[in-house]
Amino acid sequence: MNLRLAGIRQSFQGIEGFLVTDMNNIRYLTGFTGSSGFLLITKARNIFVTDFRYKEQARTETSGWDIVIEKGERPKTVSTLSRKLGIKRLGFEMSVSYEFFRRLSKRDLILRPFRNTIERLRAVKDDEEIELIKEAVTRAESAFFDVKPYIRKGIKENKIAMMFEERLKKRGCRHIPFDIIVASGKNSSMPHARPSEKMLDAGDLVVIDWGGEAGGYFSDMTRTLLIRGANTGKKKEIYHIVFEANKKAVSVITPGIDGKKIDNSARYVIKKAGYGEFFGHGTGHGVGLQVHESPHITWNKKESIKEDMVFTIEPGIYVPGLGGVRIEDMVAVGKKGAVLLTKLPRELEVI
Amino acid sequence: MNLRLAGIRQSFQGIEGFLVTDMNNIRYLTGFTGSSGFLLITKARNIFVTDFRYKEQARTETSGWDIVIEKGERPKTVSTLSRKLGIKRLGFEMSVSYEFFRRLSKRDLILRPFRNTIERLRAVKDDEEIELIKEAVTRAESAFFDVKPYIRKGIKENKIAMMFEERLKKRGCRHIPFDIIVASGKNSSMPHARPSEKMLDAGDLVVIDWGGEAGGYFSDMTRTLLIRGANTGKKKEIYHIVFEANKKAVSVITPGIDGKKIDNSARYVIKKAGYGEFFGHGTGHGVGLQVHESPHITWNKKESIKEDMVFTIEPGIYVPGLGGVRIEDMVAVGKKGAVLLTKLPRELEVI
Repeated sequence: MNLRLAGIRQSFQGIEGFLVTDMNNIRYLTGFTGSSGFLLITKARNIFVTDFRYKEQARTETSGWDIVIEKGERPKTVSTLSRKLGIKRLGFEMSVSYEFFRRLSKRDLILRPFRNTIERLRAVKDDEEIELIKEAVTRAESAFFDVKPYIRKGIKENKIAMMFEERLKKRGCRHIPFDIIVASGKNSSMPHARPSEKMLDAGDLVVIDWGGEAGGYFSDMTRTLLIRGANTGKKKEIYHIVFEANKKAVSVITPGIDGKKIDNSARYVIKKAGYGEFFGHGTGHGVGLQVHESPHITWNKKESIKEDMVFTIEPGIYVPGLGGVRIEDMVAVGKKGAVLLTKLPRELEVI
Repeated sequence: MNLRLAGIRQSFQGIEGFLVTDMNNIRYLTGFTGSSGFLLITKARNIFVTDFRYKEQARTETSGWDIVIEKGERPKTVSTLSRKLGIKRLGFEMSVSYEFFRRLSKRDLILRPFRNTIERLRAVKDDEEIELIKEAVTRAESAFFDVKPYIRKGIKENKIAMMFEERLKKRGCRHIPFDIIVASGKNSSMPHARPSEKMLDAGDLVVIDWGGEAGGYFSDMTRTLLIRGANTGKKKEIYHIVFEANKKAVSVITPGIDGKKIDNSARYVIKKAGYGEFFGHGTGHGVGLQVHESPHITWNKKESIKEDMVFTIEPGIYVPGLGGVRIEDMVAVGKKGAVLLTKLPRELEVI
């Protein structure tokens, strides 16, 4: 945690204090898992402010922070504390609401916006974080193997989703990072479909997108299965194109590459095969305390990839009426290239 | 939904268009349950903008909206659409991030902030919403009765929490509104404790705070039980004070009263009994598509209470070292006063 704070203090140009309001950033810096509070950091002091409800929890979960309990309006608390700490120029996170910014701007402070300062630090994981992510992957994969015998013709999508949830909990996940997607047949052409009452049917592509958790860190993965049936040639074809796109993207990853280039490499495979218009989302995203975080691996954002970043590679092809395929893996960036964190088989399974 | 839109159009003074960015507000106005998108509303047009992933879902879930798929940067999409629709002065929600506001303010638009416009509409529930909330209450109460036989000396807090989750799902809840709190003995003096490995012990107060869901609407309730044991006189005393505070607050509710007055009435009972310093949180909050929403029933916010608002009444006393008590009910505001939605017994149960 102290190394993390040092990283923030390095960006203290032109300010005497930094206000941290994003709850994930607060957790990253302090270990606090509650839902309300803020940090005020100066060169010399670490102040953690929360409300009455979290008084004891803050004491238990954090160390090295002076804990202050807030009672009134937050902008007032910030300005009072700033005065005491000698802060005139206060850095703040641009993710705050416009409303909070406006109320704070009426106080006697010079406000300096900081964009993604902590998010950028968070994108590069330390050993402890990578271990937790690996555990989150293992739990999610174990849940997959638990549920897999039940994935067959006749079972309902939402039944599978519910089984995944139960198994993830049993495997130790305290939180499920997002609503599990189980989308079969025509539903599978919606990249973010909600599990329905529909039963898996012969010839269906079945997209399953789920994730696990360990110690607050998440994992995120997708597998697409095919239910045995007639006329599945086209479905197998798109599976193989997506698989090639996934492998291509993973193969180009190296410290220093731009995320846009990784996206392009997957996109090129799909475009060349004639399915460019059916791959409308980005190729991947960072995963950590949030299931979607920096870096963004997509066509309209430049992001320099660094060693020890952890993100997904998840190209897909979605053909309305026919169905969709997505293959999503998680990678960690090593010195020489990507290391696959997901260990599940990636070849098409027909069941 | 059309009535809801009419409510927004009534606040169209000084603007040609209104930008809705809060996902709960979007759900309220359109029925859309996905996680990305925005609305652009003019006197004559309803535009729903989302990305590729939600194309089909938007079509299925919404009606009366022109669906547009966004590809590039959102501020640019907003300004391009605004130009097409003849919007020069654009209303926006103050809950947007400062970053988004700043990027949008560089576009050729006159921006007008609107504060809680839709949140205020949402605070007053229609019949359909109240029915869903009642169902969310029923599901949560059924889960309580399912788990109750297992609540006894020797069971771990986190085991009870996990059983609640399973039962809520079995009772039909698609989402659990918040992490269930099961806090026993000393832990119960933390209003927002996380369930731990601690076993329930003789003489423990056990605070259980949980909620259910139905059709996207939530419920939220708390019961405090006492495990049979020696020297429980003080614990019973604080229970009865909290119970009196709860009843007092419920009794003063009537259309037109200020939320602050409701808070005061509960707080007065607790202060008079000498425990004022141990009741540090507000008396209640609205519940609907979010588990915390308008109105806020607390000492530092004025909010006029209206018929058909739905909120919690949840006074508590938390004495470090001894334990805590909270009794949380949900009420709907009727013509003549509060109607209790929670049907669970409120008298102290010693088990």
